[in-house]
Amino acid sequence: MDFNKVTIIGVGLMGGSFALALKEHGFKGRVAGVGRKKDNLIKAKSLGIIDDYSTDPATGVKDADLILLASPPGQFEAIAEDIKGRLKAGAIVTDVGSVKGEIVNRLETLMPEGVSFVGGHPIAGKESSGVDGADATLFKNAKCIITPTGNTDGSALENVVELWETFGCKVSLMTPEEHDMIFAAVSHMPHVLAYVLVNAIMDIKEDVLPYGGSGLKDMTRVALSSAELWGDICSYNREPVLKALKGFSSSLAHTIELIERSDWPSLEKEFKRAKKRRQLLESD
Amino acid sequence: MDFNKVTIIGVGLMGGSFALALKEHGFKGRVAGVGRKKDNLIKAKSLGIIDDYSTDPATGVKDADLILLASPPGQFEAIAEDIKGRLKAGAIVTDVGSVKGEIVNRLETLMPEGVSFVGGHPIAGKESSGVDGADATLFKNAKCIITPTGNTDGSALENVVELWETFGCKVSLMTPEEHDMIFAAVSHMPHVLAYVLVNAIMDIKEDVLPYGGSGLKDMTRVALSSAELWGDICSYNREPVLKALKGFSSSLAHTIELIERSDWPSLEKEFKRAKKRRQLLESD
Repeated sequence: MDFNKVTIIGVGLMGGSFALALKEHGFKGRVAGVGRKKDNLIKAKSLGIIDDYSTDPATGVKDADLILLASPPGQFEAIAEDIKGRLKAGAIVTDVGSVKGEIVNRLETLMPEGVSFVGGHPIAGKESSGVDGADATLFKNAKCIITPTGNTDGSALENVVELWETFGCKVSLMTPEEHDMIFAAVSHMPHVLAYVLVNAIMDIKEDVLPYGGSGLKDMTRVALSSAELWGDICSYNREPVLKALKGFSSSLAHTIELIERSDWPSLEKEFKRAKKRRQLLESD
Repeated sequence: MDFNKVTIIGVGLMGGSFALALKEHGFKGRVAGVGRKKDNLIKAKSLGIIDDYSTDPATGVKDADLILLASPPGQFEAIAEDIKGRLKAGAIVTDVGSVKGEIVNRLETLMPEGVSFVGGHPIAGKESSGVDGADATLFKNAKCIITPTGNTDGSALENVVELWETFGCKVSLMTPEEHDMIFAAVSHMPHVLAYVLVNAIMDIKEDVLPYGGSGLKDMTRVALSSAELWGDICSYNREPVLKALKGFSSSLAHTIELIERSDWPSLEKEFKRAKKRRQLLESD
């Protein structure tokens, strides 16, 4: 870990866990935290997660060798505008955002000469957001996607990959566009569906939700995630999310048609196909 | 527990757990198991779950005071036809089926003079089906819905309610129709959506499913359930399931429209509404 100072912008679950993972894996430099809420930064410092803090990004990134963007992705562009004049030559800027295409594109163009941006997305989380849930082992055995482009500096890429590997991640490289197509399918669409499901059940009858068993709790757990974050993700990954939701919508219309036609053999066949595919995840 | 012999038709997770709960709570009589697969019955006997077995329902119910139907609900009517001539006067027939309206109606008309049917639905389960998962504590603290009608015998109802309460259930009474509306919303529709979700993701790209994190695993866990059982449930609760799925489909169409219009404030509002409602389940 060839960094002296690391600045984490957004000290929540992901940013806080990143800071703890750094310390856990032998980082001896200083970790600065930047955020909008001073109370949260004071708490993070008192928990030993960060060493210094600032509510001003431009101040926080001074002398930093590595800057991690860990706030909601909707804020990345404004932050990049704020800090671009203060970044040290040779600094690396990276992120943990769940969307890549549009963000990587915009941030790359905003970086000054001599500063490299490398897009990243560790597939880790808990339903509890916030620094209280920060955990040095959050990234252990997690997948982490790194999304280099034709503009990415080779040595910065290597440094970022090595860092996540040090934290115990299984790192995969892919283009930002491939990332966004895959995560629209396996993450963004399912989150939207969980929110829609809770609302649709309550719209049938206000007081029926508590009759749901553990299956319903499991299915709707991700609806406990930050509404702001998932709104941002939909806006930044609009096209792939729409494509995935429309695909789901067609599959659902087909299933509704089978039930309307009372075509039970075909319905059971669809259920069996899904069960067989889902079983593959169990061994993962 | 005023029974000498209990016959369980369908010795899987639910039937097996019912047998173990009987023994756990001091039942001293005999438990007979009935099923289509002799191997499964032999296993259940060797595990001490049942005392006797038969592959013929009519033989199995001889002298039974209580008969529990715990096979897939699609088989209930044929079983009732098979056993109706062999039921002892004063016997109680009950079930654990996830659908009630049509089944309660059909079974009530099939019961001979002097035999009472009482519909039941314990809200308990695991993703693993089969007798290997049978567990005496499966029903502890679970909700159990009992669905009496105008024809239900008062003393049989009391006996069935008392039995589930002995197992640790919180029992609620409601009409079969109210039950079916509620469970279409909180259970049957979500199961259908989980199957559809797995298929829709795989239809986007065959190999992307393993990129899903724990959120996707949670959301699709119920797609590991028996395809036969859930096909049966859709067929027996066709109208309420269709109504719920169409309601979901409209909510989804509305959400897709918000994303198409890039109306992010309204989208975030919908997500927040769902999050707030979902939080109520956490304290449950």
